[in-house]
Amino acid sequence: MAVGPERNVSIVPIEGIRLAAVESQIRYANRLDLVLVEIAPDSATAGVFTQNAFCAAPVSIARQRLENSASRYFLINTGNANAGTGVEGELAALACCDAIAEIAQTSSQQVLPFSTGVIGEQLPYEKILVALPALYKALSVDAWQTAAQGILTTDTRPKLASASFTTNGSQANISGFAKGSGMIRPNMATMLAYVFTDANITKPLLENFLNVAVKNSFNRITVDGDTSTNDCCMLVATGKGSVVITDTDSQAALDFQAELNAVFEQLATDLIRDAEGANKFITIEVHEGASEQECLAVAYTVAESPLVKTAFFASDPNWGRILAAIGRAGLVDLDIESVTVALGDTLIASKGAVDAGYSESAGQAEMDKDEIRVRINLGRGKASERVWTSDLSSEYVRINADYRS
Amino acid sequence: MAVGPERNVSIVPIEGIRLAAVESQIRYANRLDLVLVEIAPDSATAGVFTQNAFCAAPVSIARQRLENSASRYFLINTGNANAGTGVEGELAALACCDAIAEIAQTSSQQVLPFSTGVIGEQLPYEKILVALPALYKALSVDAWQTAAQGILTTDTRPKLASASFTTNGSQANISGFAKGSGMIRPNMATMLAYVFTDANITKPLLENFLNVAVKNSFNRITVDGDTSTNDCCMLVATGKGSVVITDTDSQAALDFQAELNAVFEQLATDLIRDAEGANKFITIEVHEGASEQECLAVAYTVAESPLVKTAFFASDPNWGRILAAIGRAGLVDLDIESVTVALGDTLIASKGAVDAGYSESAGQAEMDKDEIRVRINLGRGKASERVWTSDLSSEYVRINADYRS
Repeated sequence: MAVGPERNVSIVPIEGIRLAAVESQIRYANRLDLVLVEIAPDSATAGVFTQNAFCAAPVSIARQRLENSASRYFLINTGNANAGTGVEGELAALACCDAIAEIAQTSSQQVLPFSTGVIGEQLPYEKILVALPALYKALSVDAWQTAAQGILTTDTRPKLASASFTTNGSQANISGFAKGSGMIRPNMATMLAYVFTDANITKPLLENFLNVAVKNSFNRITVDGDTSTNDCCMLVATGKGSVVITDTDSQAALDFQAELNAVFEQLATDLIRDAEGANKFITIEVHEGASEQECLAVAYTVAESPLVKTAFFASDPNWGRILAAIGRAGLVDLDIESVTVALGDTLIASKGAVDAGYSESAGQAEMDKDEIRVRINLGRGKASERVWTSDLSSEYVRINADYRS
Repeated sequence: MAVGPERNVSIVPIEGIRLAAVESQIRYANRLDLVLVEIAPDSATAGVFTQNAFCAAPVSIARQRLENSASRYFLINTGNANAGTGVEGELAALACCDAIAEIAQTSSQQVLPFSTGVIGEQLPYEKILVALPALYKALSVDAWQTAAQGILTTDTRPKLASASFTTNGSQANISGFAKGSGMIRPNMATMLAYVFTDANITKPLLENFLNVAVKNSFNRITVDGDTSTNDCCMLVATGKGSVVITDTDSQAALDFQAELNAVFEQLATDLIRDAEGANKFITIEVHEGASEQECLAVAYTVAESPLVKTAFFASDPNWGRILAAIGRAGLVDLDIESVTVALGDTLIASKGAVDAGYSESAGQAEMDKDEIRVRINLGRGKASERVWTSDLSSEYVRINADYRS
C-alpha cells in the first residue's frame, strides 16, 4: 500500500559520486541490502543525526568521524540496525569500515557506517565483509536507482529526487535518495537520506543549507511518533561543478537553498506516501498560533492521535476527534471559540462546534480523497506550521506485528 | 476481546443511593443508554473533570453546578457525547436536567448531566425527555449492575467494584462503577466513573480523598493517548452509615483512603483489561528516576508507542522498540549505560545492549503471557511511577474505523 502512483524520477548523476548495491543476505535472501557510496576527495559533507539517547553504534561512529575527517565512503546496510548492541556492535561497525578502507586504500576514519533494520540484534558483519570486494568493484556513476533500492526496509518503493538549475549562468545539480516508512518522527534529524550536489560549498555553509532544508521537510513528518535510533541525513558537495557558493546571502545561495528545499520536501513527502500501511497522505496545517512551538504541538497531537488516524483510514469525517486532539495539545488558555477547523476548503468547525454551513456530504467528499489537507486556525497569533502524516490502518498493525517473524 | 475472565463482582448497596437505567434509543435500539442516580439529601459530592480544552457541554454544566449546589441527581447518557455542539448542546443538556428536576420536585441546579459517545453531533434530547418518567420510576437501591451496564459504549463488559470494611468498630461501604475503553489518557480526571460511600465526609475532605485515589488509578492509565472531551469521576458520600470522618490524619481516614484506592485501582485496571481490541494487560514500571515527572514521561512514551504496542500484540519480545521509546522520551543527559529493562523477572537489556544472561526463549515466555510487566530502571534517582496500558491490535483499528458507521 502506498498513496498515489510511484513517481518515475530521472536522476542527474553528480560528478564525483559513484554508487553500488549488492545482496549480502544480512536478513533476507534475494534483496539488495548493502550499499556503498564513494565521494571524491576534497568534497564537503554535512550530516544530522537522531536525537534518540539510544542511538545506534553506526550513528555514534559516523557522527564522530564526520567531525574529524573528510568523508570518502558511506557504507549502508539494511536488515539490522546495529542498535542496542553495545561494544560488540561498535566493533562490528568498525570492522566493516576498516575492510572498505583497506580495499579502497584510504583511512578508516573516512568511512561512515549506517545501518537500518531490526533493533537489538548483533550485526552479522562477516556476511558484510564477504560482500565488500564485489560491492566496491560494482561502483558506478549511474547506480542511483540501485542504491535507492538497496537502502529500503519496509518501504514498498524507492524514493529519489533530483534537480538541475542555473544560477549566475552556471548549472548546478542535486540528486539524492531516502528510505523510511515506520518508526518515523524525526527529531532534529531524519530517516536515512543521502543527498549530493556538484556545487562547490564549504562544510560550514553546507551544514547551514542542510539544517534549513531538514527543518521543513524531514523534521515535519510523522508516521507513528516513534523516533528511530538510526536516523541520519547526509548532504555532500563534491565541488566538481561550476557553481561556487561562498556567501549565504548571494543569489547562488538563495537559489541553491530553494532547490535543495524542494528535493528534501519531495523525499520527505515520498516517505509519508509510502508510510507503513498508508492509504492517505495527510497535511496538517496550523495557522495563527502564538508561536511555532504551539503550532507544532497542535499539529503533532492531531497527526499522531490514533483516533484521528483511524478515522482517516475509514475516510470518516469524524472531525470531533480532531477537536478533541486540539483540546489536549496542552495550549495554555486556548479559547475554543476562536478555533476553526477545515478539511480542504470545507469549513467544518467554528466557535467550538460544527459550522452552520457544514454538511456531512461535503466532509465525506473531502475524506474520500487520497490526499487530505486539515487546516486548523487557532486565532491567537501569527505563527504557522505544517506537518505531513499518514493514516493508521490495520495494515500498519499487521506490518509491525509481523516485522520480526 | 478483553484480557482475562470477567470478574463476578458482588456489590454492596450504598444507603442513600438509588439507580436506574432504561433504553431510550439515543443511537442504538435494544441498548440501555440512559442512567439516573439519585443521591439522598445532605450528601457530599466531589468530582474531577477532563482537562481537554474542548470539554463537552455537560462537563461544563456539571462542573459549575457541583460548585454551586449539593448534587441530588446524576443523569448519564451514552451514544452521544454532546461535545463540540456549542450553545445548542448546552441548551439540550439543560433541558434534560430541568425535566428531571420537574419530575423529582427539586432544583435543576442539583441535577448533573454526563454524556459519552460520538463527538460533534447534536444530542437527540427529545428521546431523553420521553424516557425520563419511566427512568425515574425505575429507581431502585440495587440496580448497580444495570446502571454499570447502562453507561457502556465500546466496552465489552461492565466495570464495578465494591468494598466493605470496619474502622474504629464501625462498618463503611464503598461501591462504584466506571466505563471507558478508548480515547483513554485521562489527564487530572478520568473516564466516566461514579463511586459512592455511606461514610459521613465533608465535601473538602471528600475532594481530598478523591484526588489521592484518582492520581494512582485513573490518572495512570492510557489506551491510545487520547484524552476524552467527556472524562468525569464523581465521588459521593451519603453519610447514612455509621462511620464519620472529620480529620485526614485519623485512622478512619487512612482506612477509608486505602479502601477507596483499592476500589479505584480495580476500576481503572478493569478499563485497561477491556480496552478497545486489547489482548494484553501491560504494566509499565519506571524506577530510580530523577523525578516523578521523568518517570511518567518514560512510562507514557513506552506505553503509547505504536511500535511497542504492536510488538505486544504480536507477543514479540522486540525489546529494541522499548529501548528506542525510552531514548526518545526527552530525558536530559540520560546515560544509557545505567538503564536496565526487564520483562517480568527476565532482565533483557543493560548497559545499552542486550543483557548477557538474556535468552530469546525467556523473553518469549514473558511475552506470551496475558499480563506483562515491563520494569525500567533509569539508575539516576529515587522516583518511581507505574502506568497501565494495553496492546495495539488490528481489532483496535477496526473498532475505531467502524465507530461511526
